[in-house]
Amino acid sequence: MRILENINSPAELKNLSLGELPGLAQEIRDEIIQAVSVNGGHLASNLGVVELTIALHYVFDAPRDYILWDTGHQSYAHKILTGRRERFKTLRQLKGISGFPNKEESPYDPFTVGHAATAISTGLGLAYARDLKGTKEKIVVVIGDASLGNGMAFEALNHAGHVQKDIIVLLNDNELSISPSVGALSRYLNRIITAPLYNKARREIETFVKKIPRVGSKAIVAAKRLEEGLKNLIVPGMVFEEMGFRYFGPIDGHNINLIISTLKNISGIDGPILVHIVTKKGKGYEFAEKFPMRFHSAAPFNIETGKGLDKVDAAMGRELPCPTYTEVLSAELIRLAASDDKIVTITAAMSGGTGLDKFLKDFPDRFFDVGIAESHAVGLSAGLAQGGFKPIVAIYSTFLQRAYDQIIQEVCLQNHHVVFCVDRAGLVGDDGATHQGIMDMAFLRTIPNLIMMAPKDGTELKAMLKYGLNFNGPVSIRYPKSRVPERELVMGSELEIGRSEVLREGKDLTIIAIGSMVYPSLEAAEILRDEGVDAAVINARFIKPIDEELIKDWGRKTNRVITVEEGIEEGGFGSAILEFIESQGLWDIQVLRLGLPCRFIEHGTREILLKEFDLTPAGIVHRIKRAKWA
Amino acid sequence: MRILENINSPAELKNLSLGELPGLAQEIRDEIIQAVSVNGGHLASNLGVVELTIALHYVFDAPRDYILWDTGHQSYAHKILTGRRERFKTLRQLKGISGFPNKEESPYDPFTVGHAATAISTGLGLAYARDLKGTKEKIVVVIGDASLGNGMAFEALNHAGHVQKDIIVLLNDNELSISPSVGALSRYLNRIITAPLYNKARREIETFVKKIPRVGSKAIVAAKRLEEGLKNLIVPGMVFEEMGFRYFGPIDGHNINLIISTLKNISGIDGPILVHIVTKKGKGYEFAEKFPMRFHSAAPFNIETGKGLDKVDAAMGRELPCPTYTEVLSAELIRLAASDDKIVTITAAMSGGTGLDKFLKDFPDRFFDVGIAESHAVGLSAGLAQGGFKPIVAIYSTFLQRAYDQIIQEVCLQNHHVVFCVDRAGLVGDDGATHQGIMDMAFLRTIPNLIMMAPKDGTELKAMLKYGLNFNGPVSIRYPKSRVPERELVMGSELEIGRSEVLREGKDLTIIAIGSMVYPSLEAAEILRDEGVDAAVINARFIKPIDEELIKDWGRKTNRVITVEEGIEEGGFGSAILEFIESQGLWDIQVLRLGLPCRFIEHGTREILLKEFDLTPAGIVHRIKRAKWA
Repeated sequence: MRILENINSPAELKNLSLGELPGLAQEIRDEIIQAVSVNGGHLASNLGVVELTIALHYVFDAPRDYILWDTGHQSYAHKILTGRRERFKTLRQLKGISGFPNKEESPYDPFTVGHAATAISTGLGLAYARDLKGTKEKIVVVIGDASLGNGMAFEALNHAGHVQKDIIVLLNDNELSISPSVGALSRYLNRIITAPLYNKARREIETFVKKIPRVGSKAIVAAKRLEEGLKNLIVPGMVFEEMGFRYFGPIDGHNINLIISTLKNISGIDGPILVHIVTKKGKGYEFAEKFPMRFHSAAPFNIETGKGLDKVDAAMGRELPCPTYTEVLSAELIRLAASDDKIVTITAAMSGGTGLDKFLKDFPDRFFDVGIAESHAVGLSAGLAQGGFKPIVAIYSTFLQRAYDQIIQEVCLQNHHVVFCVDRAGLVGDDGATHQGIMDMAFLRTIPNLIMMAPKDGTELKAMLKYGLNFNGPVSIRYPKSRVPERELVMGSELEIGRSEVLREGKDLTIIAIGSMVYPSLEAAEILRDEGVDAAVINARFIKPIDEELIKDWGRKTNRVITVEEGIEEGGFGSAILEFIESQGLWDIQVLRLGLPCRFIEHGTREILLKEFDLTPAGIVHRIKRAKWA
Repeated sequence: MRILENINSPAELKNLSLGELPGLAQEIRDEIIQAVSVNGGHLASNLGVVELTIALHYVFDAPRDYILWDTGHQSYAHKILTGRRERFKTLRQLKGISGFPNKEESPYDPFTVGHAATAISTGLGLAYARDLKGTKEKIVVVIGDASLGNGMAFEALNHAGHVQKDIIVLLNDNELSISPSVGALSRYLNRIITAPLYNKARREIETFVKKIPRVGSKAIVAAKRLEEGLKNLIVPGMVFEEMGFRYFGPIDGHNINLIISTLKNISGIDGPILVHIVTKKGKGYEFAEKFPMRFHSAAPFNIETGKGLDKVDAAMGRELPCPTYTEVLSAELIRLAASDDKIVTITAAMSGGTGLDKFLKDFPDRFFDVGIAESHAVGLSAGLAQGGFKPIVAIYSTFLQRAYDQIIQEVCLQNHHVVFCVDRAGLVGDDGATHQGIMDMAFLRTIPNLIMMAPKDGTELKAMLKYGLNFNGPVSIRYPKSRVPERELVMGSELEIGRSEVLREGKDLTIIAIGSMVYPSLEAAEILRDEGVDAAVINARFIKPIDEELIKDWGRKTNRVITVEEGIEEGGFGSAILEFIESQGLWDIQVLRLGLPCRFIEHGTREILLKEFDLTPAGIVHRIKRAKWA
């Protein structure tokens, strides 16, 4: 019988002896590998923090003490240890356990999170609250080295170090986040771990200083100063010390006893503390240790071989699936860049996810991974554009929210030629509420000068990329986390700014669809035809500017306009159409906007969620028929 | 005759002898003080960088070399020296010289900026572009110590230090930004300037180390290590060195010769360089040196007395003007906080501008100035809310764009009780395009769970603040940069979520106005009455949720609904009304949305701009009459 069977909360964990903990760690690893191999999920990062998680719950008293997992994709062991072991096999399934901390799920998750580098901020807020109330709970933040390079984490560190609140920051340094870590701070952390001066020579120097003969008053004063200075010199984490944190480490993040004794030792110390813990991503599972990037966020795989199930099928003779939009973009970008040396690309720690890793191979000088630093990524693109280049900034829809101001000021106010490739736009499925990319059309549409497009398929994505690279001004292209359609239409017309294309004529109503909703709308028109309704279908192509003439024409012809988009209905693409029709005094035209409700949408596959929100052919028909037409 | 009369570009400046430069500095100071005393503007920061600006243009070769003023409110001397001396008296006036760098204005301003901490990012982009092209221009960024505490600046520093591009960052350290600087980094900078170890003892220690007797091989090894270590120890800016920058300084920012020789010396050095320059805010003008915060962004004043012209008038017996919305909020907050110890307040380096400086005096433990760190400010508020407090986060509309993602994830996804006081919402006037607060309704409206309000006057602002503090969830209240109305209506009804109030009945059309547009709409109704049109006027109170019943009722009664808002028309308040009416199939109701166009709006007084965009009573009437009604 496994130890784990008896652990239903941290209380039972605390009853175990130190000697039992490594065995428990192995059981947790098996549990995680098992669930992720079936449902997919973040594997490597979770395997890296198993010992750390056990130590945290062994020493601290959650949920009274706060344990905040920054970003949160490394909280699987935490979930297993805090009463969610039984349900863990439902990981990332609809209504199942979320892949991130979720406050609806457990009192052990104080925040529902998913975006990086926020936990020192919220932790400091909790520390202020505690001290104002006069309570005594500990606040422990676990943050990765890559997140520490993010601006928000720095802002919070800078504040916490200044005000000297009691807060414990555990720096989980795996020297590799989603992509290899970038930034001077990461390099500094690496120096700490490897520099022999800091570790071996530390005691040696101390001894030596004590032996220095003290002759003459001037020399004595200088020697005292020297000793004072050496206190800094021999502390490896001096940058953190200068920032107001007490630094401890580096310590081995897979030695449970060491972590436990360290945590016990520091928990009596006042003020902000940073404990530098070195872990190995993928620890304990051969394939994940070897390919930590591939196993960062993995699709279902075979535990024995480490191979993705999709690929196994392919090897067995099944037809290869269509490429994803990301793959189409990646290939086309490389093709275009070969004959245009002004094309440069920027990613914020998502070179794999955005497909730019392939670009990097061919054009290493024209690729920039800035780390988890979306604001800087966009600022950098503005400088490159000013310098005469054509930057492609590929960021997921949900993370683009972190660069909103920079898109406005650094790019659009300057009218700079930057192409934003908004990946994962729409429902993303398994990652849930924090990762849905459903707001970008609404928030980008408010920005002057920005041209916004969305392709209906891979062919159009390529055309839009080319168009964007030839347009002299800010451009965005949004595309979903999905494969391109199996059969694509031949493009009926060249792209032209603000011009849509009529894919199907009809006399009863006009469906204007954008991006991923074009093919489902065409199918909806087929269903409607069978029911005797003759629907025109327009592929909008542009979210901004919209095709005013075409909308007027078809609006007048059919008097009923239905907009369809994979984004929130509030302020989105449909609202743009509606606003235009109203502004023209076209009072006879009735508009029905179909999209997603303005609420946080939980995890579940994209297919299930599209169905739930009626963004399938049948759903579109259903909503058209149900609408209150005049 | 002044030296300045002959300086029409940096070329003429370069012809001056070093001995002539201090005199030129005095002339530039006089010019700045003169213009700001008449038009208002950023005084203290500009007086602080006069010598630095002269030195920059003396040494570097703009516009070929890039000089990037971060934030940009300290670019007056730069403007005077780069061909804008004659027009400088039009500072901040409509069609006059902008108070910030403006690329439309001059080739010496590569970017139009206004928000802090972006220039290292854009500068690094320029450096990459330069190196890809193989050109040789220098890239010089001037950034304040407060901006350096911002996350985006850190992200860029972290990246630049890692990739070792040639870029010069001039840290303009005045130990005081808009408010006294906060953060551990500021404290560190201060230690550099003041610590005797770094300056006086430096040589002393070096001498001492040389005298240490070298006996025994172990001691020799240790001594060598010690010397190596001391190289770090005696470099004052070690944190920057660890971040990959060569650090020089601190140097006196008012010694032109010293700055010039330093800049000349460093300009041959490769890699990222940080020069730490210490300046005095308000330098050379007695009152600005004494009250740098008051003279950060000053209204017109009397040069002899340093007193604001408004206040002079008041002293002469004129009636005191109404308080600003900011002042009303500040006073009410203090009143409410006296009996509710859960109220805490947060500002991002704008304690004066948001009126929270007064709160700080009464409740120092419950006030948090996080520095120019909007993202962290919102994260901190989420932690405080989780800890049981009621945080008030007061941020200008335009700067709230920098915390967009944190409002979404840290606050609204958690449904935390945080009250956002969105100050300077609407047209802000003199600061121009980067500071207009016209997008907040559109971008906040897309966020689930957020309740959004805007008061028509001071009385309602107080009621909304109280309401927000009693509501258990995220709330925003937006109010303009203006004084409250001279005569305020008695509130006709208590605030209730999503409920508007009918201020005037009418049978021909219904005007639904929000916030600052309510009184102008009432006046518009008066004008319309004189012209025989009977208009109902509704004070919306809530941007979200809207008052569905009332809108339906009055829409049906009058069939014409006009929405009026001080914000962009795309996706804003009017769109919410329009979307609702359409979603209800109320096809007979015609909607006209009045607001601001979705474009960047230049500087000019708020009054002039409101008139220009027809958001005055006469303008509203004009647009209603001009609309294409059925």
